[in-house]
Amino acid sequence: MSDGLHGAGLRAEAEVLDAKDELRARRDLFVLDDTVYLDGNSLGALPANVPDRLAEVVAREWGRLRIRSWDESGWWTAPERIGDRIAPLVGAAPGQIVVGDSTSVNVFKALVAAVRIARDPAHPDEGRDEIVVDATTFPTDGYIARSAARLTGCRLIPVAPGEVHGVLGERTAAVLLNHADYRTGRLHDLPGLTAAVHAAGALVVWDLCHTAGALPVGLDEHGVDLAVGCTYKYLNGGPGSPAYIYVRESLQDRFDSPLPGWNSHAEPFGMRPEFEAADGALRGRVGTPDILSMLALEAALDAWDGVSVDAVRAKSLALTDFFLRCVEAYVPEGRVESLTPSAHAERGSQVALRCDGAGDVMKRLVEQGVVGDFRAPDVLRFGFTPLYVSFADAERAARVLARTLD
Amino acid sequence: MSDGLHGAGLRAEAEVLDAKDELRARRDLFVLDDTVYLDGNSLGALPANVPDRLAEVVAREWGRLRIRSWDESGWWTAPERIGDRIAPLVGAAPGQIVVGDSTSVNVFKALVAAVRIARDPAHPDEGRDEIVVDATTFPTDGYIARSAARLTGCRLIPVAPGEVHGVLGERTAAVLLNHADYRTGRLHDLPGLTAAVHAAGALVVWDLCHTAGALPVGLDEHGVDLAVGCTYKYLNGGPGSPAYIYVRESLQDRFDSPLPGWNSHAEPFGMRPEFEAADGALRGRVGTPDILSMLALEAALDAWDGVSVDAVRAKSLALTDFFLRCVEAYVPEGRVESLTPSAHAERGSQVALRCDGAGDVMKRLVEQGVVGDFRAPDVLRFGFTPLYVSFADAERAARVLARTLD
Repeated sequence: MSDGLHGAGLRAEAEVLDAKDELRARRDLFVLDDTVYLDGNSLGALPANVPDRLAEVVAREWGRLRIRSWDESGWWTAPERIGDRIAPLVGAAPGQIVVGDSTSVNVFKALVAAVRIARDPAHPDEGRDEIVVDATTFPTDGYIARSAARLTGCRLIPVAPGEVHGVLGERTAAVLLNHADYRTGRLHDLPGLTAAVHAAGALVVWDLCHTAGALPVGLDEHGVDLAVGCTYKYLNGGPGSPAYIYVRESLQDRFDSPLPGWNSHAEPFGMRPEFEAADGALRGRVGTPDILSMLALEAALDAWDGVSVDAVRAKSLALTDFFLRCVEAYVPEGRVESLTPSAHAERGSQVALRCDGAGDVMKRLVEQGVVGDFRAPDVLRFGFTPLYVSFADAERAARVLARTLD
Repeated sequence: MSDGLHGAGLRAEAEVLDAKDELRARRDLFVLDDTVYLDGNSLGALPANVPDRLAEVVAREWGRLRIRSWDESGWWTAPERIGDRIAPLVGAAPGQIVVGDSTSVNVFKALVAAVRIARDPAHPDEGRDEIVVDATTFPTDGYIARSAARLTGCRLIPVAPGEVHGVLGERTAAVLLNHADYRTGRLHDLPGLTAAVHAAGALVVWDLCHTAGALPVGLDEHGVDLAVGCTYKYLNGGPGSPAYIYVRESLQDRFDSPLPGWNSHAEPFGMRPEFEAADGALRGRVGTPDILSMLALEAALDAWDGVSVDAVRAKSLALTDFFLRCVEAYVPEGRVESLTPSAHAERGSQVALRCDGAGDVMKRLVEQGVVGDFRAPDVLRFGFTPLYVSFADAERAARVLARTLD
């Protein structure tokens, strides 16, 4: 189909949708240019307040106060304070999330701790001996799950998310699942899968990298045991900004970390040779927190003040619906195939299009100012960050894609 | 002893020593004020070039290039590139160090990997079953060692460093030692202890937090197997800046990480479900690197360009000698006792003074512009960073201490 046939109508529709968008003003909180940036599911755009805040942290807190900032600038308590800022975005009450380390490291903590909790408290190193993992997950979760299994004497059982029910049983210790598939954008059934894992007497660990900040997660509501996620995608914390771990309150006194660094000690500055775990979510901390990245993230979270996650979800679905309609209208039939489920209940905040020569196509899109990313072997991935992506962006991206494939 | 009696002579001597100091100009590379900052062994001072570099990383690399910076700004290869900048400071050839994660997390990787290497390659999960750890070490190392022992089926054997020889044997898998005691500043015999561990057929892991950047370490020369260290003390990388891990080249193909994140995969963007370890030191990487903190560290390392670590060591010893002389001259007898060995071969780059009411004394020192730190229960700790501490600083610190105790 040619650009001209539908173009005027869809462009006009985008204008109307943007004018009605209640989140529209949020866009001004980010540093954007004339690029259509649909890669916020890989690296969120720069929030406009971060440069000044980080400059202040460096010049005043590090440069002038130096060591005193651990107390006076609140550095020491940043992991739990920022965790409490993330909590409402994933449906968690305060006191259950700490920020720090990478997602991979947090997956390790969560899985090993989950296995230990699932076993008889008197014998946490034996008993239930299977870890189930989403075989289609982002690979690092699978690699780390294999290591956690090896170190806890478990067998690793990789299955497609649809087959999880069939492998659960009395040997299952823990199940690690991605809330959304990083490749296709498919959203998995968190409430249903959590309930199924619990029915088998096991614990579930959810990886929220591709959903936190894009849609309601409802950790507390659905009784999730443990969760992890990164902060550099929809939360816009900056490249490699620290990840987080959620430990449900009722499990915290049994959370037995495989990485019991001094920051998780009940009395860290007592410098005592024997380990005694801190109370609460602090058990998820390990070593000295990475302050520059962490405080950049804290500033980035200001963009969420007063935002309803339901509104974010509504806009996300409207954006991906609209983009799919534009693609259908503009792109010659048969050139791309959407891997993203059309049902809203199964869709995250991205659109994945299978496309021959996807790697080259993405390069050419980027050259034309439309930035998504390529995932091997043949996927074009477009992420829609409701805080700063507009309907006009979605229309333009589809238009440029059609021209590129023409 | 009164200030006046010796003060004029020691002040004049400090002037002479500062005038002769070949590292004197390095001080101008840091942001300092009229504080005597003797806490660089806890948090190094701010290098003057860091604020501008970090502002550029944020505004241009994150803000404008965004996701493209992983390639175009060299973000992806930062862990190994910056590792190679640290390498000469600890006596390592390139290709053996990667930066990332906290010291605690790196201790875990190093210890578990060491145990696996020490065992029969065909059965890395059984065999030698003892981990020896310095019982006087910074506590986090002991906590993590206990976890590594539990997960690898080892018994943990905490001993004083002087007793390590007596417990080594055919069951020893790995030994974790601190190069310098964080409390007393005592320097341990890295060459001798490394040789003893090797004679028992085990591997040694050295924690260099309190020596890297303060004195020659000689990792390659002494055949050290694995080492870890932080970068926020003598390397001035900033609060909680990422730590590093050294894996001796000849051991890299047997380095079997307990944290095999996607960054340590042979083909990370292949997103393959099966793990295949990268070649070389990259095996020490885990998840997405923390770019803001990492690139601040990279800029901070510029202060080392052209610096000889031998010159740093010579100044460090001269500074601590001079400070001890000033303390002896100024402080009333019996009020403090040095815990730091007087023999140069046993001294790191700090002076620890046992003192009644040390916590309060340190508070009053800080109020008077002399910043060291307090370590429970009764230690005043003064770190001497040769790149920016002067002999005049040392004299003034001793003088203010004497006045405070008077």
